Amino acid sequence: MIIVLKPYATAEQISHVIQRVESLGLKAHVSRGTYRTIIGVIGDEAKLQAAPLRAIPGVADVIPVLPPYKLASIEAQREPTVVDVCGVKIGDGHLAMIAGPCAVEGADRMDSIAAAVRAAGANILRGGAFKPRTSPYAYQGMGEEGLKILRDTGDKHGMPVVTEVMDPRRVELVEQYADMIQIGARNMQNFVLLTEVGQTRKPVLLKRGMSATIEDLLMSAEYILSQGNPNVVLCERGVKSFDKATRNLFDVAAVPCIRALSHLPIIVDPSHATGRPDLIPACALAGVAAGADGVHIEVHDCPEKALSDGPQALLPRQYAELAEKIRAIANLLGKEISERSVAAALA
Amino acid sequence: MIIVLKPYATAEQISHVIQRVESLGLKAHVSRGTYRTIIGVIGDEAKLQAAPLRAIPGVADVIPVLPPYKLASIEAQREPTVVDVCGVKIGDGHLAMIAGPCAVEGADRMDSIAAAVRAAGANILRGGAFKPRTSPYAYQGMGEEGLKILRDTGDKHGMPVVTEVMDPRRVELVEQYADMIQIGARNMQNFVLLTEVGQTRKPVLLKRGMSATIEDLLMSAEYILSQGNPNVVLCERGVKSFDKATRNLFDVAAVPCIRALSHLPIIVDPSHATGRPDLIPACALAGVAAGADGVHIEVHDCPEKALSDGPQALLPRQYAELAEKIRAIANLLGKEISERSVAAALA
Amino acid sequence: MIIVLKPYATAEQISHVIQRVESLGLKAHVSRGTYRTIIGVIGDEAKLQAAPLRAIPGVADVIPVLPPYKLASIEAQREPTVVDVCGVKIGDGHLAMIAGPCAVEGADRMDSIAAAVRAAGANILRGGAFKPRTSPYAYQGMGEEGLKILRDTGDKHGMPVVTEVMDPRRVELVEQYADMIQIGARNMQNFVLLTEVGQTRKPVLLKRGMSATIEDLLMSAEYILSQGNPNVVLCERGVKSFDKATRNLFDVAAVPCIRALSHLPIIVDPSHATGRPDLIPACALAGVAAGADGVHIEVHDCPEKALSDGPQALLPRQYAELAEKIRAIANLLGKEISERSVAAALA
Amino acid sequence: MIIVLKPYATAEQISHVIQRVESLGLKAHVSRGTYRTIIGVIGDEAKLQAAPLRAIPGVADVIPVLPPYKLASIEAQREPTVVDVCGVKIGDGHLAMIAGPCAVEGADRMDSIAAAVRAAGANILRGGAFKPRTSPYAYQGMGEEGLKILRDTGDKHGMPVVTEVMDPRRVELVEQYADMIQIGARNMQNFVLLTEVGQTRKPVLLKRGMSATIEDLLMSAEYILSQGNPNVVLCERGVKSFDKATRNLFDVAAVPCIRALSHLPIIVDPSHATGRPDLIPACALAGVAAGADGVHIEVHDCPEKALSDGPQALLPRQYAELAEKIRAIANLLGKEISERSVAAALA
Repeated sequence: MIIVLKPYATAEQISHVIQRVESLGLKAHVSRGTYRTIIGVIGDEAKLQAAPLRAIPGVADVIPVLPPYKLASIEAQREPTVVDVCGVKIGDGHLAMIAGPCAVEGADRMDSIAAAVRAAGANILRGGAFKPRTSPYAYQGMGEEGLKILRDTGDKHGMPVVTEVMDPRRVELVEQYADMIQIGARNMQNFVLLTEVGQTRKPVLLKRGMSATIEDLLMSAEYILSQGNPNVVLCERGVKSFDKATRNLFDVAAVPCIRALSHLPIIVDPSHATGRPDLIPACALAGVAAGADGVHIEVHDCPEKALSDGPQALLPRQYAELAEKIRAIANLLGKEISERSVAAALA
Repeated sequence: MIIVLKPYATAEQISHVIQRVESLGLKAHVSRGTYRTIIGVIGDEAKLQAAPLRAIPGVADVIPVLPPYKLASIEAQREPTVVDVCGVKIGDGHLAMIAGPCAVEGADRMDSIAAAVRAAGANILRGGAFKPRTSPYAYQGMGEEGLKILRDTGDKHGMPVVTEVMDPRRVELVEQYADMIQIGARNMQNFVLLTEVGQTRKPVLLKRGMSATIEDLLMSAEYILSQGNPNVVLCERGVKSFDKATRNLFDVAAVPCIRALSHLPIIVDPSHATGRPDLIPACALAGVAAGADGVHIEVHDCPEKALSDGPQALLPRQYAELAEKIRAIANLLGKEISERSVAAALA
Repeated sequence: MIIVLKPYATAEQISHVIQRVESLGLKAHVSRGTYRTIIGVIGDEAKLQAAPLRAIPGVADVIPVLPPYKLASIEAQREPTVVDVCGVKIGDGHLAMIAGPCAVEGADRMDSIAAAVRAAGANILRGGAFKPRTSPYAYQGMGEEGLKILRDTGDKHGMPVVTEVMDPRRVELVEQYADMIQIGARNMQNFVLLTEVGQTRKPVLLKRGMSATIEDLLMSAEYILSQGNPNVVLCERGVKSFDKATRNLFDVAAVPCIRALSHLPIIVDPSHATGRPDLIPACALAGVAAGADGVHIEVHDCPEKALSDGPQALLPRQYAELAEKIRAIANLLGKEISERSVAAALA
Repeated sequence: MIIVLKPYATAEQISHVIQRVESLGLKAHVSRGTYRTIIGVIGDEAKLQAAPLRAIPGVADVIPVLPPYKLASIEAQREPTVVDVCGVKIGDGHLAMIAGPCAVEGADRMDSIAAAVRAAGANILRGGAFKPRTSPYAYQGMGEEGLKILRDTGDKHGMPVVTEVMDPRRVELVEQYADMIQIGARNMQNFVLLTEVGQTRKPVLLKRGMSATIEDLLMSAEYILSQGNPNVVLCERGVKSFDKATRNLFDVAAVPCIRALSHLPIIVDPSHATGRPDLIPACALAGVAAGADGVHIEVHDCPEKALSDGPQALLPRQYAELAEKIRAIANLLGKEISERSVAAALA
């Protein structure tokens, strides 16, 4: 922690700051510059986070030198985390190919989409049973019935399944059906929900909030990790921007940026990032080329009749074409796409 | 709803769109322009929201002509809503003066702060018992004990109290103690929580999310209203920006903008909007001058020892100075600051 | 300047950094913390700006402790600058009321608008002769003919005039006609143009760029000041945002924020900030309440026939109503609106 | 153009709008909906741009159905433009590999860097002689001397050269030395400069402004094209964002998005987009995978001594490693990297 004092801080103010630092059992190392005094704090920086030093008169700025997340940081663990979703590995060279419709709409549709994405090479099946919708009048999902359909479809096609949970009271329910639990972008800072999924041991797909910084995302991962659940997969899905040409702005640089800060796997979701099927393939390939550990794509066999987010879904044949290109770039970069082993599928 | 077709849309595509519109019982009014064809949809636009027209080949854009919120819209109710918080009115010329510490930290501190802000002219007391913190290691609030202290302090000083709820499982608990329930910025799109508070009849202070558009905010209000709770007060508290000079960017234009779209009261929170005590007074006055129905300000009598957000709190004497100026501008604009009547206080 | 080293910086890397600092005649003050080493640089920080310390292996971050602008900073001059535009004072309690059409469109229209805004209390007349338009096909202004009309109209009504310059080759021409030169938002970082107007002694109205930080704005002011022209008035006119409810996002907090950093006057332009006449009055009052040194507003007597930016202009009677409210708030805050003295007008 | 009227627009207002449309020789096609009336305008939409319909009472919104740029649009030209920079082709399968230092600093350094990037596979050499710097005190470039060095170095190594121009008075000078003229991000809306380079026939590298929408970028290209210069190459180099983890936010989706709107080549500049050498390789590969027509990268052989932007430059060996990967992905996508032919080099 570095405390920068104001240009005209008084000697009294400076000694008050030093006293506060020392009262916490830390050492203050004072540099009196030509224009300003700065105080380097030596010791366990975490002790200081609770102390609002910035509120002390004479203090201009307080600059942490350690990231506020610990378990999520690369300093805590040098080797990349590999998350295992019922036999499908994500991270450290293993690419997740998550695909499926936005919402589970019925058993037949789910089956036909699952068959198509499985044939194209997807290794995890997605589908929403509880949908976060900005309008209270929009389709809210099939609920538990949808979870059952998803589970059955995944089992039939030998694919682990991922689905979103929005309500802390339903984490237990969702856990019974899903192999991986998704926290959506709008709930990335729903700390109650993060704490709840942190208490399970299920893999968690944590989507970046639409205006969350990379640090915010890692702090939300920290909530889950600090509850004892180490199986967190991060997901970049676009952030807010001034340009309405795309729904969100796909922050592909988040992939190498997170790689440098954390050991957790990071995948990309070009469907939500762009909101436009014609841009999804290019952005999916960009994500893989940038080193992402997986690609999350919405696929629907009749987008114009989809009950949710139809306009951003790829058709099965578009997905198949894209998956082939993804594999080519993945090969080039020495990555592999693991599949659920038969043994795991039968377990 | 206006459907704009792509420049080279085929006759077949156009008739497919018309058919979809008509199959929903609506009328399609086709204008064939020099370069493009557009289709005006006549009838109940709401029917179309579920139909992902944008996914139909040949469709370039779908432009709604009605706002997606209904109950919150000025079309639904021309006269401004006045929310009554135990005798303190908010809206239509009545200014809320909400003040208090970020977190309830103990009975003595709460009492001294409440006495000070009451003397300065505040009419509603705030204090957090459950705190949303980006770090799992930061102070999380006193919980129910904090609710009790807040309630007792409010009663002692004759002030209604407002506090935040984060967990849908605790809405009932918070409702027992608080006169007004706050939904924080990070939970503005926590639809589960919005639905839950919508089922109470308590006044709700709904804070704008950090990257929520004004339409998003009104849609979140719609969630509460559509559950039957008409007592919603909106709060502008700064949005994300590229400039780190202030914590957030205080969007003062949101006040007249919301006034033109909705009948709901809109207040401002310059504490969170700026994160800097030296900027709070100017922004509070700006908000009132722009027509806000209230001002929410954090006050602490020893910011450097505050357990949460100390650096952005005003000191009691700073608040008193500011309150005087707020009253002067409010007077100029013909607004009044209502207080809890003795009868209401005793009730 | 504070140099923060990476967690695993080697002793060799650290001594290389120290050597670089000392080679520039500065002193390095090393604090070895528990997790990281930081180096405080003592001496003239400016020397270091040219040295890309961040490129040295082992360096994590370089944090300046002084602002990069000097002449514009409050440290350079404690008393507020008052800019005198031919007798109309701006700053330190003097409010500029700048009004007029977006573009000069002809002598008659200019005359009628000037008469109206003068009667309403405006003290500086604006009008564009060279218009920056995003489209090459849009109206580009009357050129020198427009400058003449503006000059004559200002003289007739006893108002100093301000107009934009876009081309460094035309600064001399514009200087002959105008009392104040405007640098538009899109040219805020046109350093060639800033340097050119810095070589005149005319007051400059420097508009903030649409994505310029406050520091960027002050750096652009520094360009002008460093050429010897001290007469700079800053102008907040909205920044880019994710919400398209308003054209730009009016950053009213920029007013007190700049006040804390610089001695230069800062005015607001709610016309460009909002792009919506119905929001202009509220935002203008907000700006004055926040402490702005002036208000810049576009006024047109037939907006639907305006050749440029008609939809954002106030009608003369709307301006007159607003001006009255501005005066009331200005009075409350102890500000005055100076007018060109007769002597100055005749000079 | 679609004109949407306000919900309570009067019959009189509606007929006033129709009259305005018809007075311009266009046809108004009226759809009276359940809640609102909309008017489709049939005829040459361009005539309407000058008419500020939005300022007419009763008008809620005016929605163009054609893009405001014409020459730059894909409607104007279906086949992709290939820009030829002295034998190096850019666009339609031809990848530009532009590399070199931020600023030309001297003949020896320029020579060693050029030799290195040429060996690694770069086909165009960059180097700034006039530098746009946010600080008036920062290094401003070598001027004409720098142009000479760049020219000589390019000739020696058989590479066409690109350099930035900032001042319209120097376009003629820069044209004498450079094979391609760069317009920097800060000058993307310097319409005077755009007009000036539009009057040459030199290829122009037009960088996207930091807060320019894709439409803004295409409008700036339109300025150049409309002056008669068809040789425009667009460049995505990062936009402003709320997250300071990277200098700017690299908008990789701009590549396929522009491809869908325009026939002009679009390249990426990960150096400026990220400002961090450790992120440049991943973002460069992402850009190529997304379909970019080239990659612009800053390379310096001693970044810590660079006079400008050293911290964001790659070392020559880092560039060589990256170039190899770029070629691999380019091959996969069927792209080729053309080189200046000997004939062209000698011409």
